[in-house]
Amino acid sequence: MSPKITTELLKQLRQVMKNPRYVQEPVQAYIVPSGDAHQSEYIAPCDCRRAFISGFDGSAGTAIVTEQHAAMWTDGRYFLQAAHQMDSNWTLMKMGLKDTPTQEDWLVSVLPEGSKVGVDPFIIPADQWKRMSKALRSAGHDLVPVKENLINTIWTDCPQRPCKPLITLDLSYTGVSWRDKIVALRSKMAERKVMWFVVTALDEVAWLFNLRGSDVEYNPVFFAYAVIGMNTIRLFIDGDRMMDPAVREHLQLDSTLEPEFKIQVMPYGSILSELQAVGAGLSPREKVWLSDKASYALTEAIPKAYRYLTPYTPICIAKAVKNAAETEGMRRAHIKDAVALCELFNWLEKEVPKGTVTEIVAADKAEEFRSQQKDFVELSFATISSTGPNGAIIHYKPVPVTNRTLSVNEIYLLDSGAQYKDGTTDVTRTMHFGTPSAYEKECFTYVLKGHIAVSAAIFPNGTKGHLLDSFARSALWDCGLDYLHGTGHGVGSFLNVHEGPCGISYKTFADEPLEAGMIVSDEPGYYEDGSFGIRIENVVLVIPAETKYNFKNRGSLTFEPLTLVPIQTKMIDINLLTEKECNWVNQYHQKCREVVGAELERQGRHGALQWLLRETEPLARVQ
Amino acid sequence: MSPKITTELLKQLRQVMKNPRYVQEPVQAYIVPSGDAHQSEYIAPCDCRRAFISGFDGSAGTAIVTEQHAAMWTDGRYFLQAAHQMDSNWTLMKMGLKDTPTQEDWLVSVLPEGSKVGVDPFIIPADQWKRMSKALRSAGHDLVPVKENLINTIWTDCPQRPCKPLITLDLSYTGVSWRDKIVALRSKMAERKVMWFVVTALDEVAWLFNLRGSDVEYNPVFFAYAVIGMNTIRLFIDGDRMMDPAVREHLQLDSTLEPEFKIQVMPYGSILSELQAVGAGLSPREKVWLSDKASYALTEAIPKAYRYLTPYTPICIAKAVKNAAETEGMRRAHIKDAVALCELFNWLEKEVPKGTVTEIVAADKAEEFRSQQKDFVELSFATISSTGPNGAIIHYKPVPVTNRTLSVNEIYLLDSGAQYKDGTTDVTRTMHFGTPSAYEKECFTYVLKGHIAVSAAIFPNGTKGHLLDSFARSALWDCGLDYLHGTGHGVGSFLNVHEGPCGISYKTFADEPLEAGMIVSDEPGYYEDGSFGIRIENVVLVIPAETKYNFKNRGSLTFEPLTLVPIQTKMIDINLLTEKECNWVNQYHQKCREVVGAELERQGRHGALQWLLRETEPLARVQ
Repeated sequence: MSPKITTELLKQLRQVMKNPRYVQEPVQAYIVPSGDAHQSEYIAPCDCRRAFISGFDGSAGTAIVTEQHAAMWTDGRYFLQAAHQMDSNWTLMKMGLKDTPTQEDWLVSVLPEGSKVGVDPFIIPADQWKRMSKALRSAGHDLVPVKENLINTIWTDCPQRPCKPLITLDLSYTGVSWRDKIVALRSKMAERKVMWFVVTALDEVAWLFNLRGSDVEYNPVFFAYAVIGMNTIRLFIDGDRMMDPAVREHLQLDSTLEPEFKIQVMPYGSILSELQAVGAGLSPREKVWLSDKASYALTEAIPKAYRYLTPYTPICIAKAVKNAAETEGMRRAHIKDAVALCELFNWLEKEVPKGTVTEIVAADKAEEFRSQQKDFVELSFATISSTGPNGAIIHYKPVPVTNRTLSVNEIYLLDSGAQYKDGTTDVTRTMHFGTPSAYEKECFTYVLKGHIAVSAAIFPNGTKGHLLDSFARSALWDCGLDYLHGTGHGVGSFLNVHEGPCGISYKTFADEPLEAGMIVSDEPGYYEDGSFGIRIENVVLVIPAETKYNFKNRGSLTFEPLTLVPIQTKMIDINLLTEKECNWVNQYHQKCREVVGAELERQGRHGALQWLLRETEPLARVQ
Repeated sequence: MSPKITTELLKQLRQVMKNPRYVQEPVQAYIVPSGDAHQSEYIAPCDCRRAFISGFDGSAGTAIVTEQHAAMWTDGRYFLQAAHQMDSNWTLMKMGLKDTPTQEDWLVSVLPEGSKVGVDPFIIPADQWKRMSKALRSAGHDLVPVKENLINTIWTDCPQRPCKPLITLDLSYTGVSWRDKIVALRSKMAERKVMWFVVTALDEVAWLFNLRGSDVEYNPVFFAYAVIGMNTIRLFIDGDRMMDPAVREHLQLDSTLEPEFKIQVMPYGSILSELQAVGAGLSPREKVWLSDKASYALTEAIPKAYRYLTPYTPICIAKAVKNAAETEGMRRAHIKDAVALCELFNWLEKEVPKGTVTEIVAADKAEEFRSQQKDFVELSFATISSTGPNGAIIHYKPVPVTNRTLSVNEIYLLDSGAQYKDGTTDVTRTMHFGTPSAYEKECFTYVLKGHIAVSAAIFPNGTKGHLLDSFARSALWDCGLDYLHGTGHGVGSFLNVHEGPCGISYKTFADEPLEAGMIVSDEPGYYEDGSFGIRIENVVLVIPAETKYNFKNRGSLTFEPLTLVPIQTKMIDINLLTEKECNWVNQYHQKCREVVGAELERQGRHGALQWLLRETEPLARVQ
């Protein structure tokens, strides 16, 4: 992997930083964040501006270029990769290390007095703008919005913004029509006394209109904004995809509708001017609702006194609580996903001893089996297929130079998932195809105990997910082990595999309380640097629980696993399990057998069925 | 309990609200918060201004008086009491209920356009000022500081600010001299590049100078401020207490000292003008460090660009980690406290059946036994002595009208503590002097399981206390029970019984990580409205733990109980305990026996010793 040579590019960037065609006044520094205009986790190639200017293409990082310097901030996952991919023009700023300055502090230390720092106001979220602008101002500098993205001015072969066809989802998938979602949204708006709601996150637009796309890899979304008024609906979207008769029919674009449900389709690029017009026409006390993570550009379009900003939008919260149709879809998707994984593991068991299966081969095979299932669309994230020491790299993705061959001597960790038209999956299993060591089994069993502690937890209505995080760690902690990531994230319904506003992590506090119908992952792990990685992940549904005293009618909740893939019993040290934990494993496996077994039977996959039956034999505790 | 008649007082207050002698312009509303100028939890009688104007004397509440209205905001603990104590001039605003307006919203709804809202800038913390001022400004009103406290202008018989003698603590109690504390503070200041540190919390002043006082009930503090520069020390304190030779000697006021350790003693009332002088004399980049909870008046004395505000001060953090001398003192204090409680429970066991012991009598008796112990100073908070249904009132304090007689038919809950010169105690025990019901035992045992889960928890260095809160609830949750308070708070060393920056609560997130040497309470409970209350509270010390794998040398922590008072085994349903929990109880009781038994023996308290031996018989599990 040789670094990208950026000398010429940086020279060009520094020229446009003072070119009056692009900047009102020269800027002494220019910030290039990772994100797109929708604060997406996964971005399209045309939005990979930071990778273009620096060569570093990890998922997180911020570049800042001044007249003299070029610096890149990224976190521990990417120190090595960034160092490899960037040339000597760049200074790597290792976030999380004690001596690494913040972007603000570094800017203050290198800039001449009274400098201007430029940034694309569409890419920087409003809350981040506020923080940075304040820090710079207090040191005598100015953060300024630069309308035209300066990277785009020098990126001559920048790919087009994707504009792929849309998928319409009918009621059997969504449970609620887009009209009813608009009605519910307007009632939330009325409750908060706001007149307008601006939809900026791509998955929120997709969910609201019951549409899906493929503009971005892994996330079935499309580039669009929406502005919902009490009597108007404006959808900002480009391309001929709105000419598709199925889409026109779905959105009733050619029907006679009550005016408040008539969708006005407008160009994607006109969002700012339209929103400015909305902002200019507001009467006193008319508020406009935006996410506090919306871009600075859109937030500024609404005069400050009229803004109503919240960390989670009403769509984000409604989207998280899955209805019966969505829940059933997620169940179906997880059964199909389990069928694919039973096939894969059955295949691996036979092939691994031959020494021909690499991490990449295994990942491809997983995708092949998944793609055979009905309504398969694409993967839901880049498959983490890792064996031996690679398993300890939490966000590992096999590439030719790291690609390792699976063997009977090493632990294999597979974290993968798919998008089906009826649901999104995300599952991790850790397998040994030979004989695991006592220490490997011990660690695996602690992770399993943590997984069960969360999955079987009972808690009162209104409990936030972060309060459950320690349950997943307790067995590990008792022996002096831990893992440095959260325990779970929200999962979309044929949407983003990571979604808010709920989760299970020691890191969050602003998460919304768990509610019946929410879907999260439960994925504790343990990682031994240079040796192996262990993670056991199910996607679980929040359901009402039965308790003896029922919290004085406050009600209680627990989880039901949607993922139904056997947990390798060979890796379990039964003596470390309590009777309750042992029963949990046996009941879980019984359910895998019944539900996935029936589907394997139906699909005539007899080899995989035999594997399933063998892998779900009940654990027997020695008394 | 008849309400205070406030018609005349309110008339007077409304007059001074427009009297140019006190206000530059008339104010249309005046806010009377609960606090004092140091944001103390317990306040002196001269600071009970809200109680004076309204009659309501609960510990939490904010009064707002406008030309037409008078309203009081308080929380669920005090709805009944406030309703009883206030006359019909007052509207009770029940905080936490859905329809109750916030103070800001209410003000906006009742005030004429462009109103001025006054408040004493010494009483309102800066962060609260900021929030309220912003809300009022966005509705066209102004929050204005009124220099002279308007309540004081009409409070003709306002008590004097207390100015009691000081106690000096030598190294055997504090472990570190005040000089060394100043040196450590200055090194923290240098790290953050600040030139001045303003000490505003009373316990921080007391801790820094190794002095104690008795200006406020329960908290052994005295009214003072301090301003520490890199080369100067200013102590703002009133009265002839600085004439006390012991104090002069302790502070070396008459010795020849290096100038940077020379303490300048100044009048308490001169803090503002002195701080303004500091603020006016700052060079660029010279910062002044203040708590973000310091009063608006003091915060404003420093120009905004020069302020360095943090939620926890370096003193708050240093104070929380007890050194060897403090830890030993806390151990001694808890042994003495256990002696007093063994005496009390032995006495109660004999007296309760006679039907002559009321909650007040029991509380007084507890104080009597404590006061017999060496270095006893005072109680550390108002004793919660409650039987039967009173036990379900979490912050109950017996008064004649509620005073209930202890009996063999009801659960008795005693939450009490004391200040000894060597340490502060806080312990809750729940006892039955007859035969508890199966349900009472069941609930008690779940609470005990939660208490043990926290006390025996092992967790990595750097873990925040709020991550342990759910451990205390898990056994209750499994049966659909819960308690609506946090699990633990920091405890001072012969200082405030509630102190930051650590704690164990689902409510906090900004707590600092637990460190070896910190001391917190572990106090889960269960409350059945109208029937009984259960709480089991020990004060515990954070200590290093031994684990099999030691978190890759990150190190691990657990707790050691300092409180050594038997937990009533009669209340335990042994069948609900695991073997590990059973062993914990037995080992805890063994330690009570050895440590407190030896002290009872030494003090010749043979009756109490017999009681202790009986109460600490090991639990025997039926196999």
